[in-house]
Amino acid sequence: MDAGSYPLLEGIDDPAHLRELPEHQLPRLATQLREFLLESVARSGGHLAAGLGAVELTIALHYILQTPHDRLVWDVGHQCYPHKILTGRRGVIGRIRRSDGPAGFPSRQESDYDTFGVGHSSTAISAALGMALAARAQGSRRKTCAVIGDGGLTAGEAFEALNHAGDVRPDLLVVLNDNEMSISENVGALNRTFARMLSGGLYGNLREEGKRVLEQMPAPMREFAKRAEEHVKGMLVPGTFFEELGFQYFGPVDGHDVGELVRVLRRLRALEGPRLLHVVTRKGKGYPRAEANPIAYHGVKAFDPAAGLGSGGGSGPPTYTEVFGRWLCDMAELEPRLWGITPAMREGSGLVEFARRFPGRYLDTGIAEQHAVTLAGGLACEGARPVLAIYSTFLQRGYDQLIHDIALQNLPVLFALDRAGLVGADGPTHHGAFDLSYLRCLPNMTVMVPADENECRQMLYTGHLHKGPAAVRYPRGRGPGVTPSGPMTPLAIGRAEVRRHGSGLALLAFGSMVAPAEAVAEALDATVVNMRFVKPLDRDTVLAMAAEHPALVTLEENVIGGGAGSAILETLAAAGVQRPVLQLGLPDRFVGHGERDELLTAVGLDAPGIEQRIRQWRRQYVEAPE
Amino acid sequence: MDAGSYPLLEGIDDPAHLRELPEHQLPRLATQLREFLLESVARSGGHLAAGLGAVELTIALHYILQTPHDRLVWDVGHQCYPHKILTGRRGVIGRIRRSDGPAGFPSRQESDYDTFGVGHSSTAISAALGMALAARAQGSRRKTCAVIGDGGLTAGEAFEALNHAGDVRPDLLVVLNDNEMSISENVGALNRTFARMLSGGLYGNLREEGKRVLEQMPAPMREFAKRAEEHVKGMLVPGTFFEELGFQYFGPVDGHDVGELVRVLRRLRALEGPRLLHVVTRKGKGYPRAEANPIAYHGVKAFDPAAGLGSGGGSGPPTYTEVFGRWLCDMAELEPRLWGITPAMREGSGLVEFARRFPGRYLDTGIAEQHAVTLAGGLACEGARPVLAIYSTFLQRGYDQLIHDIALQNLPVLFALDRAGLVGADGPTHHGAFDLSYLRCLPNMTVMVPADENECRQMLYTGHLHKGPAAVRYPRGRGPGVTPSGPMTPLAIGRAEVRRHGSGLALLAFGSMVAPAEAVAEALDATVVNMRFVKPLDRDTVLAMAAEHPALVTLEENVIGGGAGSAILETLAAAGVQRPVLQLGLPDRFVGHGERDELLTAVGLDAPGIEQRIRQWRRQYVEAPE
Repeated sequence: MDAGSYPLLEGIDDPAHLRELPEHQLPRLATQLREFLLESVARSGGHLAAGLGAVELTIALHYILQTPHDRLVWDVGHQCYPHKILTGRRGVIGRIRRSDGPAGFPSRQESDYDTFGVGHSSTAISAALGMALAARAQGSRRKTCAVIGDGGLTAGEAFEALNHAGDVRPDLLVVLNDNEMSISENVGALNRTFARMLSGGLYGNLREEGKRVLEQMPAPMREFAKRAEEHVKGMLVPGTFFEELGFQYFGPVDGHDVGELVRVLRRLRALEGPRLLHVVTRKGKGYPRAEANPIAYHGVKAFDPAAGLGSGGGSGPPTYTEVFGRWLCDMAELEPRLWGITPAMREGSGLVEFARRFPGRYLDTGIAEQHAVTLAGGLACEGARPVLAIYSTFLQRGYDQLIHDIALQNLPVLFALDRAGLVGADGPTHHGAFDLSYLRCLPNMTVMVPADENECRQMLYTGHLHKGPAAVRYPRGRGPGVTPSGPMTPLAIGRAEVRRHGSGLALLAFGSMVAPAEAVAEALDATVVNMRFVKPLDRDTVLAMAAEHPALVTLEENVIGGGAGSAILETLAAAGVQRPVLQLGLPDRFVGHGERDELLTAVGLDAPGIEQRIRQWRRQYVEAPE
Repeated sequence: MDAGSYPLLEGIDDPAHLRELPEHQLPRLATQLREFLLESVARSGGHLAAGLGAVELTIALHYILQTPHDRLVWDVGHQCYPHKILTGRRGVIGRIRRSDGPAGFPSRQESDYDTFGVGHSSTAISAALGMALAARAQGSRRKTCAVIGDGGLTAGEAFEALNHAGDVRPDLLVVLNDNEMSISENVGALNRTFARMLSGGLYGNLREEGKRVLEQMPAPMREFAKRAEEHVKGMLVPGTFFEELGFQYFGPVDGHDVGELVRVLRRLRALEGPRLLHVVTRKGKGYPRAEANPIAYHGVKAFDPAAGLGSGGGSGPPTYTEVFGRWLCDMAELEPRLWGITPAMREGSGLVEFARRFPGRYLDTGIAEQHAVTLAGGLACEGARPVLAIYSTFLQRGYDQLIHDIALQNLPVLFALDRAGLVGADGPTHHGAFDLSYLRCLPNMTVMVPADENECRQMLYTGHLHKGPAAVRYPRGRGPGVTPSGPMTPLAIGRAEVRRHGSGLALLAFGSMVAPAEAVAEALDATVVNMRFVKPLDRDTVLAMAAEHPALVTLEENVIGGGAGSAILETLAAAGVQRPVLQLGLPDRFVGHGERDELLTAVGLDAPGIEQRIRQWRRQYVEAPE
């Protein structure tokens, strides 16, 4: 087929068109959808390998389910591109994750076919259970189906939902898309159980052999067999785990045989009650480079499919993630009590090298943020010095554990909070917009925000030495380019750094906002303070700034509500000091997707936006107050 | 035995003394410990039924494990009283949960035997896994043991920990204390699996019968039997679920046969790797009233053991919990789309009557806060109007789900946040000290704080009608005593109520702080505003108050960091208004346990404390500013 020619696919602007196709054409459609997807993502960038693996499954689901009347809930959503293409968004998929294109994840705002907004793992069964219960209460016979990966099943919420669904018994189909992968290799004991299910065709052989044997049994043995039969069936069929949770188990089925998927789903659609279909797929299917390296092809920038991804990275200053990864290895060499922990984000969090060099002190918990936090607490109880590398947005999953298992017990756990602030193309589910608010309200926490890469390294060192819980939060990608160098030196806890002395105005900037603050300081003749610590806040410096300047501006890449700027307001109020203060930060709305720089501009947090807002505010409130 | 005479128990000031006892004396010790516990808790109040059920298990664990060298981690901690009694705290257990006595939960600050601070469910396996991995890394042969209830297993974190432990294979013993109860009846499909394990002695019979049968088998059948053997064993022994998660399963064992427990634990202590011992106990064991009604005897006030608990409640104005429960039933009669959801807190959250009258719209998810939040989101997607009744402190468990599955998708879910502020005897793990900070930073949220019971009812109604996510947060126990009456009338969103006009000072009070603010207003001649909404804040009223008064005081039962008072500071700053503001709220430290009133006094949030702090502040900053 010529690139750019997808005759079957081009006839489908709606799943209703798909359902008009005769079954025998579905394999051809799958081929076209896969090629279209590869061509499109190679051009736009985005999530690739998961979508390639879900092509046949997506076709079969929309072929059998009467979407959008029947409800289809995708877990996480990395695999949703084929779904978006088949549900009226083929024409815009080339702009996916751009500010003028569709979101990278299902979004209720975007389409009726996107029944639930996702982005973080393991919510689909819970949401689908709610939908199925509502359908039952409404007397509707519409079907509800959740699709979840084997990686997603490692998270506790999926288990909670299965356990509850098996109890309340809704009309709910869960499709387990088993590709033995999350973003990294999958981990956890259950994963081995799945692998065992698929290996060696044990069940088929045993079942046939067993039948023959049982038929020949003398009477007393038949009694035994009869009593054991139901249980033996539950055990030899490789779905015991799910059956103990109250689900009827079907499978495993080849997830790239669209005909077989259609036949099985047709049968399963007609059944009721909680049922689980185990589908085996290959991440990256159909594009050999992605099959061979599904981790590298999980999320990609634009690339040439004929050549594959470049060797990647290398040139330019290191990203914050890389700065963290190097610090962790350097620190681990000096400190044998250090452990590195990740909830299934080895690559994203910069732990590849650490995992290779220090496998005995490296823990990948799977997608299990709650457990990861408490696990770090348990380690710290025994004198270990755990470092939990976690995205700001994912720490929201372990919030209670952070409060009780770390902060309340004042345990020395270091949180390396990556992707704080606006992350860009992944959009609102992945922005780290709230962590300064939800962290600084907690007693015993130390919260640091580096202004540049070298400071990030020093702060990690400072937090590691600190005798209580500490977090260093840094943004996605590169900083101002101050390559870490020199020996590790701890910073004084709770001490800010005055970077520039001006008059008339002091800019109190946190983390990523120090650089743009410095950029506008000259034009405004402003003092610039690199605040460094959100908690404990440098009270003396704040009060000194208030004493020396008639007006203050706070700058942070966090929502203003309860954020770092509010800590400054609290400090001024407690000291009885009154000054005009302008708070700049993220707005009180969920920010969409797009390039990080573009989003920062849109919310007024680039240098020109900052300067303009300060000038306007100064005219309105400082030069002509009240 | 005479009450007050416990000769064996009185010889044990340390588990080392226990370990000196001959085994045959342990049943007598168990009797004494149980009677002592009953007598003590009947006098002091506290958690009773769980401890009664864990007497023999506690003795056996300390008898076999070399505590504190071996690590013993209790999950939740309701069952820890016998442990505290045996580990040097017999003399103070009568003051448990009082400000001058031990905590109601294990606490690292309190004793070396309390290896991990708990309070919320399902963290023990995670913490113990961390400890076991640290022991392995340190080359220590000390043992680690986590004790978790079957209720605790419904929470996802326990599953995450089992799944991870089964993979990394530490030297870890998990004791499943199966009493078929959490605080309420246990729910979930897994619970049925446990029940099936225990019913009818299937395993014992089948195993014996199977052996006989297999011995008589002809050769071709033996081949079948051999291949099936391992799997059949895994299945007929009722531990398949755990074995699929990589644990060696042992049990079930009678948890009230201390001799059998000692023998089994001795054997298990000598093994290595992840292993699970399934112990069957009865909540309330040995006190017939508690056995018959373990829910009522879960947590008790002081009572006469000979007479049992009184009929309870009845007189006096309703608690906030009761106000909520009545509103929910009244609303459900009017609104067929309403659902009531609780994560395993039917009694505590006031849902008993609703569950009885509207079983088809009542959902108890088990201890599964993450799932409960997303489930509510799924229901709301289909036009249902879910009400999630959850303690402030437990919503911390579903924070990410609240952000993504409710707030980001702007779904109309109402959160009835009970136990906000200081809860009293349960202490720091149960205070709801952070919710105003962690909620108001989220876009789309509406956050309400009632000043009294009637307003609570109107706010619940207002939140129910609201077309987006809303939370009503109210404290534990009784309010000022304004019994709800009259029709339900929605409040204007984001509008405060001026309760008293004074001069010189305006008290901007949130929720539970309105009553003490009114109490001190006369003496201070202060204006009192019942703020009602933390978000959206009533900007107009705040600015009007600032215009009309030279000084403002904010009052809230939440930490000051990022709380409601900071929202007022942000509003003033954004409007360019400068006024002295005193923020009164919870301190930036974890508040301990004790009576709620006593704790409020200790943190200066009772009327005298408030008045004194305002007078002092006014002298320092308002009458003689800067």
